[in-house]
Amino acid sequence: MTEPQTVVRAGRAALGITGNPTLDSWQAAPDNRWVFRHVEETLPSAAVSRTSVPDRAGTRGLDRFAAIPRLTGRLEDLCTDALLVERGGEVLGEWYAAGFGPERTHLLMSVSKSLCGIVLGALIDEGLVDPAQTADRYVPALAGAAYGDATVQQLLDMVAAADYSEDYVDPRSEVQAHDRAARWREPLPGDPEDTFAFLTRLTRSHPHGERFQYCSAVTDTLGWVVEAVTGNRYADELSNRLWSRLGADHDARVSVDRGGCAIANGGVSCTARDLARVGRLMLGGGSIDGRRVVSERWVRQTLDGGDPALAAASPNRAVLPGLSYRNQWWSAGNERGNVYGVGIHGQYLWLDPLSDTVIVKFSTLPEPVGAEALRAHVELFGELLAVAEPTDQAR
Amino acid sequence: MTEPQTVVRAGRAALGITGNPTLDSWQAAPDNRWVFRHVEETLPSAAVSRTSVPDRAGTRGLDRFAAIPRLTGRLEDLCTDALLVERGGEVLGEWYAAGFGPERTHLLMSVSKSLCGIVLGALIDEGLVDPAQTADRYVPALAGAAYGDATVQQLLDMVAAADYSEDYVDPRSEVQAHDRAARWREPLPGDPEDTFAFLTRLTRSHPHGERFQYCSAVTDTLGWVVEAVTGNRYADELSNRLWSRLGADHDARVSVDRGGCAIANGGVSCTARDLARVGRLMLGGGSIDGRRVVSERWVRQTLDGGDPALAAASPNRAVLPGLSYRNQWWSAGNERGNVYGVGIHGQYLWLDPLSDTVIVKFSTLPEPVGAEALRAHVELFGELLAVAEPTDQAR
Repeated sequence: MTEPQTVVRAGRAALGITGNPTLDSWQAAPDNRWVFRHVEETLPSAAVSRTSVPDRAGTRGLDRFAAIPRLTGRLEDLCTDALLVERGGEVLGEWYAAGFGPERTHLLMSVSKSLCGIVLGALIDEGLVDPAQTADRYVPALAGAAYGDATVQQLLDMVAAADYSEDYVDPRSEVQAHDRAARWREPLPGDPEDTFAFLTRLTRSHPHGERFQYCSAVTDTLGWVVEAVTGNRYADELSNRLWSRLGADHDARVSVDRGGCAIANGGVSCTARDLARVGRLMLGGGSIDGRRVVSERWVRQTLDGGDPALAAASPNRAVLPGLSYRNQWWSAGNERGNVYGVGIHGQYLWLDPLSDTVIVKFSTLPEPVGAEALRAHVELFGELLAVAEPTDQAR
Repeated sequence: MTEPQTVVRAGRAALGITGNPTLDSWQAAPDNRWVFRHVEETLPSAAVSRTSVPDRAGTRGLDRFAAIPRLTGRLEDLCTDALLVERGGEVLGEWYAAGFGPERTHLLMSVSKSLCGIVLGALIDEGLVDPAQTADRYVPALAGAAYGDATVQQLLDMVAAADYSEDYVDPRSEVQAHDRAARWREPLPGDPEDTFAFLTRLTRSHPHGERFQYCSAVTDTLGWVVEAVTGNRYADELSNRLWSRLGADHDARVSVDRGGCAIANGGVSCTARDLARVGRLMLGGGSIDGRRVVSERWVRQTLDGGDPALAAASPNRAVLPGLSYRNQWWSAGNERGNVYGVGIHGQYLWLDPLSDTVIVKFSTLPEPVGAEALRAHVELFGELLAVAEPTDQAR
């Protein structure tokens, strides 16, 4: 199989760089021409904030939620780093753990997928992507691989089919192999050299479209489609299409592998307040502060959720029996019509269209997933929403 | 020798983390409590700009400099990524290479040292650091090592003495061993595990104060002093003391080793415009837009330069015979009184007090240092300043 060509490789090649920069090559020509401009992709780095340093833990406006039993204790039990409740554009309350704060960024894990969904929505609106076309139409290197003949819409809805176990704690699972290819884990001999190579080796398990199969490789495939149709790196297109239109206070970041592939499925980090703006954008029908990001049609489709029948096998149905998935967002299928992004170890962007409320929660739970943690969050969000809601709408 | 205690280790220990997070540990408890909040210190990452994506090459205002022979050709010959000329708070001209732009950050290499100097100046102003005290007074782990009994002022002026070769291209040099400890190069068996361990093993070569010895380990030692006296990480203190007071458009970044030590000697990256603000601060006597960062006394001392006699052995004297060094800034010792920060491969922050002008240049030259490149830059800056200068002051 031919080595897949990528936007980042093409950008490097224009500078005379053929391989991936390494710790032993980056300071010297020609690699330094690339790395000095993208140094955080090679060297671990810390932010030097242009605003202030926010290491004091604290709360703002949480008095409003004082009637909720043991709120602070439950936040601590759930290893919370940040909680933010916003309604109608106004922050109602915030809670930050010691050592964290409103100016600090946090890894979103799979909430990142929901951001990628918005980027695809914007590209579909513009006619750059046809959701009925297959992925290999845009990324020829995917031809013959699991997702090559899946349509973009099947990928968006996670109904494409691959031999891929999303068992985060099983060393033999594909999600761990995926992590190793992305250098989210130490590679083992024989591992693909980067994410793109990993994606081209995935095999299809059954016909696409038959059932929901939550799979992180899907979103990295969508990120690759974004790069292919725009000619821009995913990080730049996430800025062009979303982050630069949000009125964000801070840059976001997205982790990249050594091939330069952005980890669209889970690598974004940002502040709680900026993530709340993404929720505001969704509840605002695709525009925020007068800036249109994605069409109202696409937002409505997303908030309407997917087909619950396709998700019959999801273990999360134990908590949310009407669960479905659409356009890289989960739909709770409950009477409130909650739609959400969720990431392992407790990241949430929880939308409540009924009361026009957004909840952001950052956490670092010891376990990646689990019905108990999901149930605790769903309950907590329900209690917060009961308070957040204007009393004349109380039910 | 006891393992040196550091601010970052103490912060991690408070979360129950004893070792350095690794690629195989960071997603799980307890390491995730730290890493999800500091993910770019473990995973390479790309910026997702909150403003716009600025990949178009371009110039602004460079017409003013049209009389300079072959300006654009010379910038290209010098592998320039950015050039910015600012006078009296106004940007006179900018030039950006294709793929770079005003919203993009670039590695400063040793211009980072000059930023560290400002942080020390602010701490001295506040009485938190006494420049006449020795480093081991603030960092007991340095006792017995090369710089333990050097005074802070000797460190600031690079007249402390260590067995340390700053030969960037010699694999046996200490600067390469230093890079390996910092994970700026692949480590070799027996290398110290991180920068702090490296610093505690350095040996003194001769009495301090006798002569100028440019040494990157000095600045990392100063960074350690900053952490010790403030109890904050260097990145946060660089924000508190400098970056958050500049009116910077963008966060800066500083690379960190796996022990969490910031590479104060060379790891900062920022935009050209933000770096120009640092120059403006210096020419403004230590304040910018009414915000005081460092005392006028400290700035004056710095702009006055050091003792050229101490730098008699510097190879740069071939280009600048009156060269000296003070407070982590170079002094050209020429009739214009230029003072500057400089980093390998062609990074410059060049101050011209005579015409109140700041020049920033980012480059990725193939060679780290060399008299020819220094001469080319000094000539170029002289020509730019001759144009920038108001005509009534022309000479």
